[in-house]
Amino acid sequence: MSESRPFASLTTDFGAAYSGTCAGVMYAIAPEANVLVLSDEVTPYRIVEGAMLLRQALPYLPVGVHVGIIDPGVGTPRRPVAVATGRGDVLVGPDNGLLVPAAEALGGVTAAHYLENPAYRQPSISTTFHGRDIFAPAAGHLLAGVPITDLGPAADALLPLDLPAPVVADGSLTASVLYTDQFGSLVLGAEPAELTAAFGELPFGTSLELSWDGGEARVPFEETFGKVAVGDPLVWVDSSGRLGIAVNQGSAAARFGLADGMAVTITRAP
Amino acid sequence: MSESRPFASLTTDFGAAYSGTCAGVMYAIAPEANVLVLSDEVTPYRIVEGAMLLRQALPYLPVGVHVGIIDPGVGTPRRPVAVATGRGDVLVGPDNGLLVPAAEALGGVTAAHYLENPAYRQPSISTTFHGRDIFAPAAGHLLAGVPITDLGPAADALLPLDLPAPVVADGSLTASVLYTDQFGSLVLGAEPAELTAAFGELPFGTSLELSWDGGEARVPFEETFGKVAVGDPLVWVDSSGRLGIAVNQGSAAARFGLADGMAVTITRAP
Amino acid sequence: MSESRPFASLTTDFGAAYSGTCAGVMYAIAPEANVLVLSDEVTPYRIVEGAMLLRQALPYLPVGVHVGIIDPGVGTPRRPVAVATGRGDVLVGPDNGLLVPAAEALGGVTAAHYLENPAYRQPSISTTFHGRDIFAPAAGHLLAGVPITDLGPAADALLPLDLPAPVVADGSLTASVLYTDQFGSLVLGAEPAELTAAFGELPFGTSLELSWDGGEARVPFEETFGKVAVGDPLVWVDSSGRLGIAVNQGSAAARFGLADGMAVTITRAP
Repeated sequence: MSESRPFASLTTDFGAAYSGTCAGVMYAIAPEANVLVLSDEVTPYRIVEGAMLLRQALPYLPVGVHVGIIDPGVGTPRRPVAVATGRGDVLVGPDNGLLVPAAEALGGVTAAHYLENPAYRQPSISTTFHGRDIFAPAAGHLLAGVPITDLGPAADALLPLDLPAPVVADGSLTASVLYTDQFGSLVLGAEPAELTAAFGELPFGTSLELSWDGGEARVPFEETFGKVAVGDPLVWVDSSGRLGIAVNQGSAAARFGLADGMAVTITRAP
Repeated sequence: MSESRPFASLTTDFGAAYSGTCAGVMYAIAPEANVLVLSDEVTPYRIVEGAMLLRQALPYLPVGVHVGIIDPGVGTPRRPVAVATGRGDVLVGPDNGLLVPAAEALGGVTAAHYLENPAYRQPSISTTFHGRDIFAPAAGHLLAGVPITDLGPAADALLPLDLPAPVVADGSLTASVLYTDQFGSLVLGAEPAELTAAFGELPFGTSLELSWDGGEARVPFEETFGKVAVGDPLVWVDSSGRLGIAVNQGSAAARFGLADGMAVTITRAP
Repeated sequence: MSESRPFASLTTDFGAAYSGTCAGVMYAIAPEANVLVLSDEVTPYRIVEGAMLLRQALPYLPVGVHVGIIDPGVGTPRRPVAVATGRGDVLVGPDNGLLVPAAEALGGVTAAHYLENPAYRQPSISTTFHGRDIFAPAAGHLLAGVPITDLGPAADALLPLDLPAPVVADGSLTASVLYTDQFGSLVLGAEPAELTAAFGELPFGTSLELSWDGGEARVPFEETFGKVAVGDPLVWVDSSGRLGIAVNQGSAAARFGLADGMAVTITRAP
């Protein structure tokens, strides 16, 4: 991190006001920092969605202090943590799996410390706004030059993220919806390698059969939205490198009634 | 305020585009400023919600110029104002009560001036976007070093905020919903002192009876969300120090059909 | 543009996460830049709404690099472009009409180049997130000092924006709803000059008859919201200088069932 104007990002399910408060706390401690709100719109309590966003976005951002707060366990014994990465970042957030995929994408965990030093927390800690009282102050002090080792004791192994694994069979692939994006596109917990393992090389234009609890649909595998008519669905590889289900200029979530966590089985259409 | 990179915050009910325009106006006048959008998501026209956010958040932010625009009276004779605080901030917004609680929390009002000097407004003033044409220019000039006294004539006493007062009786407390937060939690116009006045010391775990026009519910008084099961309600002291009604990982507003302005009476459950 | 802390704005229909990613890409390339998210809330795929926002807002912002991405044609042959303006800005976005009205408002197009130089794109280009892979990198390099001419070959004439023209007759004006704003106010594709052409000088307070496919309403022409009672409608000249239909502290879109693209005919009420 350069000495001047250290970079920070902030990702929450808080909406604008509580996220803005956290950014303000960071500026109060580190006035020269540059704090980017990466997102204040993660679906409330969806750790997987937040984790996938951090993993997808942070490699494109400057090296810095990246705060992620999707924290349904606020006020329980889950522990706040700071995680140093191989690339030189420090990730700050709850030890609930949220930070793990991003840390792996940024060169792996090189150190981790619990946020327990009262010198780097607000003087008074609320029971429900640890973003303001614990996470943002830690980030601010990191931005101001405090070493991660000063924040608290070394952490145990981080809690893993509970991600549903894809199931590959000969001629079939089952994967869960990890999250739904801004446009209603559904991102699945499977990558093109799994598609190939199930079907061999799958040329664009192949017709696929999707089935899930409560529905089924025939959808082509295509390179991009513009390959199908406006309003038509497709299976494609999204910008994070995962399989997705979309509708050109429409919402696949609305079209198919699919939602986060639901399993979708893909076969070749007969 | 430090001479370099003066800090500003912006709080509106405008959504992104109109708020972004106001921030851009501030940068056009004060290119070295650091403008944080604290929130562009205040519920439209809800002065109380905006006032509570400013009071709650600004003490955590750097000393600076803080613009708040919840302005249902735009285009009427309500007067735009800048308010200097004991802490050294200047608050900018309509004289409709919005800025008053925050000014008190920041050390009280030390000076107030109406925004009437045409040198510090846009050359042409629209009838409906005073954020762009009056408030943001004033803030930009303050950030650029113009003294508050140059903005216009000294203001009369600020108009007060019309806040519903809690009603304390022996064994009962009645308070109104001040606002509903991002998670559907309801924040009441009462503090723990009023709870104590009504009930004496109330231990966590006490079962309370809530009643309102159209409903009632039995809800425990707890320290934090994690003390009840996911989906269960609680009464707790929120991060602004007020009583609130929440559902762990859910929406109390949706669960109980309560909304801003409704009065809730709290008694001990029999 | 000043050498230090060059200014950028970003306008998308992406929501927070994808917009934040684009801003992060810009900071990764140009760490000293100041990137303002003007809006991440344009209605998905609505090129006209985005174009009107850029035309309305950019003249109030600092000279800089202004990225606009409303791009229903991502992954089709539409070409990414950078456009230099007479004021000294560079606009970056898809060549689909989005940038044209803003360029005109900023002094006209002085140069335009397609974004084809691979040195100023991400090493790998996804099929669906050109904001991250093409537009934001180009903007970042412009902010870092790369001349527009290095981004790619000179562009042909920009594709025009397809804007519905108002129809003026003696005693009647027909215009389409260009977009609906945050408050539910409807902005029409007509200016006061067209009103005058249809009706002669129209004094405030004149009662107008609005009719559209499926409805009609009698609405006064007023200077501003506060001239009618709370909950009452008005026709007024909005802050972008266009005619609009609003409800004082309410939503005209909800009240009348009007939506983007619908034509409204205005006559004098009998």
